Amino acid sequence: MLLTNIRPWGGEPVDLVIAGDHIDKVVPAGSAPDTEDSIDGRGLLALPGFVNAHSHVDKSWWGQPWVSYGGEPGTQGRIAHERAERDRYGIPSVAGATAVLREFVRHGTTATRTHVDVDLGVGLRGIANVREAAAALDHAVEVEIVAFPQDGVLRRPGVLELLDQAAAEGATSIGGLDPATIDRDPVGQLDALFEIAVRRNVGIDIHLHDGGELGAFQYELIVERTRAAALGGKVNVSHGFALGELPPARQAELVAELGAAGVSWTTVAPVRSAPLPWQEMRASGVAIGLGTDGIRDLWSPYGDGDLLQVARGFARLHGLRADEDLTYAVELATAGRFVHRATHGLVEGARADVVLVDAENVPDALVRAPRRETVVAGGRVVVHNAELQV
Amino acid sequence: MLLTNIRPWGGEPVDLVIAGDHIDKVVPAGSAPDTEDSIDGRGLLALPGFVNAHSHVDKSWWGQPWVSYGGEPGTQGRIAHERAERDRYGIPSVAGATAVLREFVRHGTTATRTHVDVDLGVGLRGIANVREAAAALDHAVEVEIVAFPQDGVLRRPGVLELLDQAAAEGATSIGGLDPATIDRDPVGQLDALFEIAVRRNVGIDIHLHDGGELGAFQYELIVERTRAAALGGKVNVSHGFALGELPPARQAELVAELGAAGVSWTTVAPVRSAPLPWQEMRASGVAIGLGTDGIRDLWSPYGDGDLLQVARGFARLHGLRADEDLTYAVELATAGRFVHRATHGLVEGARADVVLVDAENVPDALVRAPRRETVVAGGRVVVHNAELQV
Repeated sequence: MLLTNIRPWGGEPVDLVIAGDHIDKVVPAGSAPDTEDSIDGRGLLALPGFVNAHSHVDKSWWGQPWVSYGGEPGTQGRIAHERAERDRYGIPSVAGATAVLREFVRHGTTATRTHVDVDLGVGLRGIANVREAAAALDHAVEVEIVAFPQDGVLRRPGVLELLDQAAAEGATSIGGLDPATIDRDPVGQLDALFEIAVRRNVGIDIHLHDGGELGAFQYELIVERTRAAALGGKVNVSHGFALGELPPARQAELVAELGAAGVSWTTVAPVRSAPLPWQEMRASGVAIGLGTDGIRDLWSPYGDGDLLQVARGFARLHGLRADEDLTYAVELATAGRFVHRATHGLVEGARADVVLVDAENVPDALVRAPRRETVVAGGRVVVHNAELQV
Repeated sequence: MLLTNIRPWGGEPVDLVIAGDHIDKVVPAGSAPDTEDSIDGRGLLALPGFVNAHSHVDKSWWGQPWVSYGGEPGTQGRIAHERAERDRYGIPSVAGATAVLREFVRHGTTATRTHVDVDLGVGLRGIANVREAAAALDHAVEVEIVAFPQDGVLRRPGVLELLDQAAAEGATSIGGLDPATIDRDPVGQLDALFEIAVRRNVGIDIHLHDGGELGAFQYELIVERTRAAALGGKVNVSHGFALGELPPARQAELVAELGAAGVSWTTVAPVRSAPLPWQEMRASGVAIGLGTDGIRDLWSPYGDGDLLQVARGFARLHGLRADEDLTYAVELATAGRFVHRATHGLVEGARADVVLVDAENVPDALVRAPRRETVVAGGRVVVHNAELQV
């Protein structure tokens, strides 16, 4: 297949020669050989498929009738509310996961790292559902699974065994959740997670909502264990609000430790969170990924699956205004490392995941987040004329 | 004209009978008399036209080639940058104002209160340009003008006379700008503005960026003068960041004073600003309006004219999650008082300004901000099948 006359990252027009599911060649526009199977890119701006580095596709009620938000505030309040209500709304389900994954595709997301609830109630059923949904879309979105103990680990005997089983059955990572405030035993939870990760050769991706010094202490515990287990590059902190809240000197120290240990970091750039020291993180090699978090679920009514809007939120939260900084925010939305891609982008050898938008340049695309005219996923046209084809 | 089968605010389906530019009757769906000039609302959710209560349509470069952001930070830095660069980009111009007003229309905004720069460089030319742009669109967006001394008042001798002239020539309000930090004379600037407002019988709308107690002091000065001049209902504070930053007791005191004096308040819900005591403001009768602020201008690259997204930003900033609170955020985006409308809404006698979106209910519309399927402005269809008709 040929995708002609597109402008990667707003640069000079090129043609993409796509062979099967990957990009075979990138050549100057007009120089690719004629073929019957050709799509006219009309000089549109081309970006790589977006990578949603933190989602929860198992628990959305997208596409179902509106559910009013309720329950108590706080992490534990939300967990309890979700456990009490989810059955009533048929969560988790294949249909629910499929519906939200289709919204991902419509907005140009072609890969996601999704946390999937694993607990004593649903066991590993959520993971099976999400896998079935991904297959139903013929993997238009590549789905990488984090087995996520949303209801706690040590405080729920039996969950560790479920995480171990999930890892044995192909989850790419196991998750954790506020080792201090949820399990009340930060060392215990982390030691148990790292033991499984080493034994099963999987990654770890920990939700850390705890703020200030309590959060910072758990960062340190994670760094120490990542070094000891030589798991650099395989450990990620999600949310990690504490980092933005710390005084500058303490923050700088922690950023350096995270970088040296190879711990990465994902955020959904919440409006009310403390801005990150993103320049220092970049300089220290702390990879940042962007995600949507839950979308329209029992935790929050917000979200629509558009990672370009999340990137814009990141940019606004951090007051980015210069062209190169606005472009950086979009680069964060295409970080292939969070779905373990060695190559990701509009380059030869990468999976053919391409998003076309009618924008002058990358900053223009970021601030307007215009509709996705065309999306190609794994060499297949999944959005055409802004209409979903899957 | 007949607009059939729409659901105002997500309620029961109705037909709107539109006579000329206003809504003549609201009747249950299917009960309006047949007419040739009928539009099928397809059961879509209907909202009143959005009211952009704080815009700067004179200085956008929307529709022109991308301009990279530059200059020094801070209010004074931005003012200097804009003054140095605006001629190069042909700011202000009729074409520029027309382009951004069309984006307003495309997103369902049918009325705006716009601040228009008045200074020793452009004089009143910006106001003339904006009026011409509004007329070019046949007033699809009703434009109310604030003569805005962006470059300062007292520090620029001659500006007061320009404001006076603008008021004499039909500006609805005159503006002010950080009386303390820009003019270095809060009492002097405010006294001068109130003198003109009383004499010319116009309103006052003051940009107040100053934070903390310095901002609070100027709030007090504004309240005192509003009471003394009996200008309740005609004075507005824009941005007013200080209010969110004050300790709760001081905040409560100030909110009560604003309410009693009849001072209203507009915000663009910036991501990094302190949340407002919106419940207390509501209880005290401090009207809140939402605006886009500048869009893609020499101050900021952000913005696209979508007031529903601004409402969503307000909702996220304040952590709104319950249905009634999400609905309240959309109500703020339709506050007709900020353009001096006695009646605004999907009710008999109001100007026929209607926005149709494919949403289940108002919270659903807020969190997704879906495309505007149809927009009617002053009885005229200005967006049809999501395509701009003006």
